[in-house]
Amino acid sequence: VHGFASEEAFLAAIDRHFPKAHPRLLVGRGDDGAVLLCPERMALTTDLFLEGVHFRTAYFTPAEAGHKALAVNLSDLAAMGARPLGFCLSLMVPPDIQKDTPGSAAEYWEGFFTGMAELAGRHDVALVGGDLSRAHRLGVSVTAWGEPGPSGVLLPRLGCRPGDRIFAAGAPHLAGLGLARAGLAALEEGGREAGSAWPEATRRHLRPEPMMDAGLALAGSGLVRTLMDISDGLARDLPRLLSFTLGAELSLDPASLHPEVRRFAERTGADPVEVAVLGGEDYGLLGTAAPEDMEALAEAVEGLAVIGEVTRQPGVRVNGRAWKLPGFDHFEG
Amino acid sequence: VHGFASEEAFLAAIDRHFPKAHPRLLVGRGDDGAVLLCPERMALTTDLFLEGVHFRTAYFTPAEAGHKALAVNLSDLAAMGARPLGFCLSLMVPPDIQKDTPGSAAEYWEGFFTGMAELAGRHDVALVGGDLSRAHRLGVSVTAWGEPGPSGVLLPRLGCRPGDRIFAAGAPHLAGLGLARAGLAALEEGGREAGSAWPEATRRHLRPEPMMDAGLALAGSGLVRTLMDISDGLARDLPRLLSFTLGAELSLDPASLHPEVRRFAERTGADPVEVAVLGGEDYGLLGTAAPEDMEALAEAVEGLAVIGEVTRQPGVRVNGRAWKLPGFDHFEG
Repeated sequence: VHGFASEEAFLAAIDRHFPKAHPRLLVGRGDDGAVLLCPERMALTTDLFLEGVHFRTAYFTPAEAGHKALAVNLSDLAAMGARPLGFCLSLMVPPDIQKDTPGSAAEYWEGFFTGMAELAGRHDVALVGGDLSRAHRLGVSVTAWGEPGPSGVLLPRLGCRPGDRIFAAGAPHLAGLGLARAGLAALEEGGREAGSAWPEATRRHLRPEPMMDAGLALAGSGLVRTLMDISDGLARDLPRLLSFTLGAELSLDPASLHPEVRRFAERTGADPVEVAVLGGEDYGLLGTAAPEDMEALAEAVEGLAVIGEVTRQPGVRVNGRAWKLPGFDHFEG
Repeated sequence: VHGFASEEAFLAAIDRHFPKAHPRLLVGRGDDGAVLLCPERMALTTDLFLEGVHFRTAYFTPAEAGHKALAVNLSDLAAMGARPLGFCLSLMVPPDIQKDTPGSAAEYWEGFFTGMAELAGRHDVALVGGDLSRAHRLGVSVTAWGEPGPSGVLLPRLGCRPGDRIFAAGAPHLAGLGLARAGLAALEEGGREAGSAWPEATRRHLRPEPMMDAGLALAGSGLVRTLMDISDGLARDLPRLLSFTLGAELSLDPASLHPEVRRFAERTGADPVEVAVLGGEDYGLLGTAAPEDMEALAEAVEGLAVIGEVTRQPGVRVNGRAWKLPGFDHFEG
């Protein structure tokens, strides 16, 4: 059903790509469950990555799909300022995975594991177990965990205060706000070939890099109040950062946006700032700091852009005007 | 898309069913990830539960689906002798969930959460986070973790030795071997009404109980060499217990099998022992102990049935005859 001769052959392919041993792993893959050697506090997160919902085999290479399935989870750990330790992986394997892709199903999984293992290896994250099932559609479920860095700090999402500065991490171009949205639109319209006209935008959608170093540096600075990652776009994520109760005054210079975001806006007749705010899947980090700490923070951690301020009155204003499009609707009325 | 007015309403329904606080939880649902207060060693496992593969809405009530999605994970922790602490939950939500089920999609999820929360509450397991996505088919991905009991022992699956006794935990009727297989067949043929003719068999398929107390008692006895849960049936699980290298001599008295298993075998013209060995999803525990420890173990832990012995030569023999049906094929040739 999965292009391998047996479940054992599938598991053997996983073993070729992912080391079984890790300093924090007492029992690895192959038992009823793993046995982890744990820090006192652990950050843990889980994300689905489903074909036809979160990605398409039509324009994701297998390696890109494997990379992104893990990357979106590591991004959550980055948003807590955690250092990743391990993850488990459940694969939903359809009978017809090769429909959209060149090569056999076994080759698909080789590519998938290569992309995932490359990212896992770079961050020294152990694959500790998982599940394998036939399914109607291709899908991946990853649960990942990590520990605090040397500072001992794990950053919360909630707790910002009126007057706090709002910053985005992931320079340049305001953390690439809007890039993945432009890339997704280009890929949906033009398929894989869209990469030549939109290299950065498509790369951001296909192969986002979780900001592990920035997350650890922000947590270690002692100057950050709250942090989250921008997975659903500023318009949907900012209200969460504001606990659905506070407001924000954003200042976004269209000239600071990535040239591909500006070109995409021009092409579609949209306001480039609107593209950046609706965004989605850029996987930059979004945080707050007390106003008196912001300067020192920007010196301590590279690549921060102050994009606004937390306000007491609900509602979000962007460049002086009330935001009226979907996404900030929790603030309306 | 999920029958609630918004994602926030869906999450509010989860909050009504699952407490947010737990002594081992520093940060619960609503952040980028949870922050767990960890024991030194933690057992962790993950399982998919997909509609059309692992269950059918046609004959699972929503509460049974919610129960079983968590139960199969807790069973893995029981097989390690662990005490469960927490789990995270990813839901794949199709637009047409109510197709097979009476009531609205919102009512489906109310039932689902009720069944899952009842089991979670009984074992004091915290729901610490998750993910929610639209999907083409209904599916659930659960990752669960736990800690050793007071003995400090977590039992491995591998490490049995020739001469060890093989036991099943989950009395009476040889841990119900074959019951869930009979129940599945009855449900597939007769739908939900099959329950009146096959009450125990269908109940075992629809609402298996993870053997948490037995797992903890077995780990605490200090007399168990290896342990696993029987999720895929003895024929597929025993080779895993034997590391695919050792063999076994099983002795299974047909008269000891559950009456519904014997009746099912009679009805289908099958050998009742074959039904018990092929089995699947009974979620009893399968373990080994040194021969000299077996008597003390059976006194220390209730409900154990010795069903065989580990042999040096590969191959499985059942009641004196070599097993030739699928499931022990790793031993053949």
